[in-house]
Amino acid sequence: MVHNFDHNKIHELISMKECIEVMRALFKIASDENILNPLRSKMELPEPSNGIMGLMPAYFKPYNIMGVKILSIFPDNHKKGLSSHQGILHLFETETGQLLANFDAHTMTEMRTAAVSALVTDYTAIPNAESLGILGTGTQAYSHLHAITLVREIKTVFVYGRDKKNLNSFIEKVTNRYPNITFKECNSAQEAANASDIVCTVTGAKSPLISQKGLRSHVHINAVGAWDPKHRELASDIVLNSAIIVDNYHAAEQQKGELIIAANEIQTSPEDLIKKSVYEVVSQDNSSYQNKPTVFASLGLATEDLAFAYAVYTTFNKKQIA
Amino acid sequence: MVHNFDHNKIHELISMKECIEVMRALFKIASDENILNPLRSKMELPEPSNGIMGLMPAYFKPYNIMGVKILSIFPDNHKKGLSSHQGILHLFETETGQLLANFDAHTMTEMRTAAVSALVTDYTAIPNAESLGILGTGTQAYSHLHAITLVREIKTVFVYGRDKKNLNSFIEKVTNRYPNITFKECNSAQEAANASDIVCTVTGAKSPLISQKGLRSHVHINAVGAWDPKHRELASDIVLNSAIIVDNYHAAEQQKGELIIAANEIQTSPEDLIKKSVYEVVSQDNSSYQNKPTVFASLGLATEDLAFAYAVYTTFNKKQIA
Repeated sequence: MVHNFDHNKIHELISMKECIEVMRALFKIASDENILNPLRSKMELPEPSNGIMGLMPAYFKPYNIMGVKILSIFPDNHKKGLSSHQGILHLFETETGQLLANFDAHTMTEMRTAAVSALVTDYTAIPNAESLGILGTGTQAYSHLHAITLVREIKTVFVYGRDKKNLNSFIEKVTNRYPNITFKECNSAQEAANASDIVCTVTGAKSPLISQKGLRSHVHINAVGAWDPKHRELASDIVLNSAIIVDNYHAAEQQKGELIIAANEIQTSPEDLIKKSVYEVVSQDNSSYQNKPTVFASLGLATEDLAFAYAVYTTFNKKQIA
Repeated sequence: MVHNFDHNKIHELISMKECIEVMRALFKIASDENILNPLRSKMELPEPSNGIMGLMPAYFKPYNIMGVKILSIFPDNHKKGLSSHQGILHLFETETGQLLANFDAHTMTEMRTAAVSALVTDYTAIPNAESLGILGTGTQAYSHLHAITLVREIKTVFVYGRDKKNLNSFIEKVTNRYPNITFKECNSAQEAANASDIVCTVTGAKSPLISQKGLRSHVHINAVGAWDPKHRELASDIVLNSAIIVDNYHAAEQQKGELIIAANEIQTSPEDLIKKSVYEVVSQDNSSYQNKPTVFASLGLATEDLAFAYAVYTTFNKKQIA
């Protein structure tokens, strides 16, 4: 029987803390021999639709599974009170190709993206980081706040959002949820970033929100919002003066706007700007990075969805048996 | 609410005769302005999996819909008594990108492929065609037999199958199902093809089953089984001496083995071997083709799945209201 895991069911089965460990375990064995992670493909609809269908297939040999995430991305949905991202993730076994389960793609994306950011942060931020900058107030703002607080003892969070109403609503909600943390509303993205040991950029911005001036010398930035060669949240001076970490070399070189644009400006290739992949981060010593500026140029990988789906699925099955 | 349409539900709602008309209506308006039909992509798993995940997205502007068919193809499944092709087809609307319905991909593929073959046959076979050659005894053999008998008054069917047991089982079943048709078991693919006005090749063959020698001068062939640049069911002499029809120029040039191999042999491009697309066939006069050898080099398009899914979905909704 094929099971369907919706938002509530996924949250019941796996906590964010567990999701971080699932990502750590994935990246520890995510060698080229163990995974297939073809570049995501997208079908862009012509006007007046203005929508995108995104397809993210992946294969993970150690668990004998494959999967695909299908995303329907309609940016104008916000105006209609609907989510801009919707979709399904299918999990298949690879002995006979049977479908095992379906998952709400939005929940999976939200959790695993934040979990991987927290994983990288755990290795590259200063150990006693206390301040966090959150640029953006959407779904990923909540999940990143949650995930980062699980790897560092955050005391103050500096929040910036373009829309004042959304910003107030975000601060109200998280103030109730995290009574031990102080939340401070900032007037600019740069103000929030400059005050923070760790910064998460989780906006829909198409051009840079922050530049290097005023950033802390040990800052770790998770640059999450831009996933297109033409879009970016960070100015090139940050990219060129930080140790860059990517989830996957090939994907980042082809699709991460921050790297492509900065490389183009200094007439080099995006590859030359990358220091490490997450696969390398989790298996090497990174202590020398903690006092330097680091950027995790996050794109999100289909293998992350797949490993997460498999964890949800096996946890569910264990509970059924127990 | 998202509806799921399984094999039985699809067959209840749309007959093969109706499916042929859905395909005719689709191709009459399937101009480049009205559709997006990106090349299918596939993820081939390494040994020992030997499986493939195929992804076929499409967009059809006149109906404001998009969709994707996800196929899990595991050729060794036959040995385990399982179907080699499994999958799901998702139908989305394109105003806000909501998922409308899911369909059993195997049933959709089986019906629409045969329906498009019958559609082309209707335009290019001689009007009084009475004999049909079926090479292959799998799912597509049944659906092609069904579809072709809806566009021509077939009296005799010549069947060839590599596996004697499957061949006997096929003939037994169809003899019961079609009491007015005579079925003849053939010892070779060529024998079946040479005796027929219309031929359907629906095998898993990787190299040619038939060549031109002995074929009727007016034969129409639906070459359906091979969908990979390296595989083919027809020898090049057939391809080079027939009017070639394709479901889509770009897809056929990139992916249809018969055309790619034949073009390579005479150092030309596959494009130069194609006479018409189905879009052109349904909107032009084709009477001059009926007395010439013609080949429909079928690949199957995601837009065909999409139009069929939409027809099933709207028929279902009309019945709910009625």
